[in-house]
Amino acid sequence: MKHLYCTTVVAVTLAFSAASVSAQMKVDDAIKFRQAGYRFMAWNMGRVDASLKGEFKLEEVVKAANAIQAIANSGMGALYPAGSDKGTGFHPTHVKAAFFAPANAKKLGEIAGNFNREANEFAKAAAGGDKEAVKAQYDKLGKACKACHEDFRKEDH
Amino acid sequence: MKHLYCTTVVAVTLAFSAASVSAQMKVDDAIKFRQAGYRFMAWNMGRVDASLKGEFKLEEVVKAANAIQAIANSGMGALYPAGSDKGTGFHPTHVKAAFFAPANAKKLGEIAGNFNREANEFAKAAAGGDKEAVKAQYDKLGKACKACHEDFRKEDH
Repeated sequence: MKHLYCTTVVAVTLAFSAASVSAQMKVDDAIKFRQAGYRFMAWNMGRVDASLKGEFKLEEVVKAANAIQAIANSGMGALYPAGSDKGTGFHPTHVKAAFFAPANAKKLGEIAGNFNREANEFAKAAAGGDKEAVKAQYDKLGKACKACHEDFRKEDH
Repeated sequence: MKHLYCTTVVAVTLAFSAASVSAQMKVDDAIKFRQAGYRFMAWNMGRVDASLKGEFKLEEVVKAANAIQAIANSGMGALYPAGSDKGTGFHPTHVKAAFFAPANAKKLGEIAGNFNREANEFAKAAAGGDKEAVKAQYDKLGKACKACHEDFRKEDH
């Protein structure tokens, strides 16, 4: 009986450990995917910035804006499973616990919705081809990024 | 005179090292950006696959296809500076030296062009909303990815 009990405890413990490891792997994969999305958007923001400060390369700006728009609208919310303010994707996540606080859900939704709108407007401005309009919308989009960073992103660590 | 010579050699050596480090950092940044693009596309391919094997979630498929299309068309060729078959972004690069061989340029161009076309067709198929058409084009897009991997990507290491 004692042997059976021990075996059961070991089996349950192993099963629990396996489940925990599996869940942790999934969280870290989700973190990798969202880090990938933001990093790819950062490349595109960077080359638009270079185009605004130097030679204006419209074709490149349009491609960059389209990539940012499609990533912004891709439904990245699915990449924030509960508890993923802790975990390591390509690097430790920068997401604060406050991101998951129910009290912040409304504010977060507004910030996310605004980011999507500004990304859509940015793609429109790029398609329009006017450098000044691109610049104005680039600044608005940057502010929309920053709004989230200020409340929900830890500084580099 | 000997002292001056030594100082000059040290100064030149330091300057050269600094330039090398800077160049290496830029290459590694480029590797990170391209790895980010592929990883984000992988997330999107994965959720389309899940939708094809389980409940078909059209809205999600459309978002995923749009993200893949925009990333494919973003001009990622700029993220392959000379010598970047060596380097570490989020992880050591998988790109083979063969990617940069002039003899392979034509083949690589065809593979890249085909990938773009299939990604565009995939977004069209998703917008059309027919599951079977999405499935057929998903398979074609997967083959276009694989064509490049076979010749120019090292196995996981």
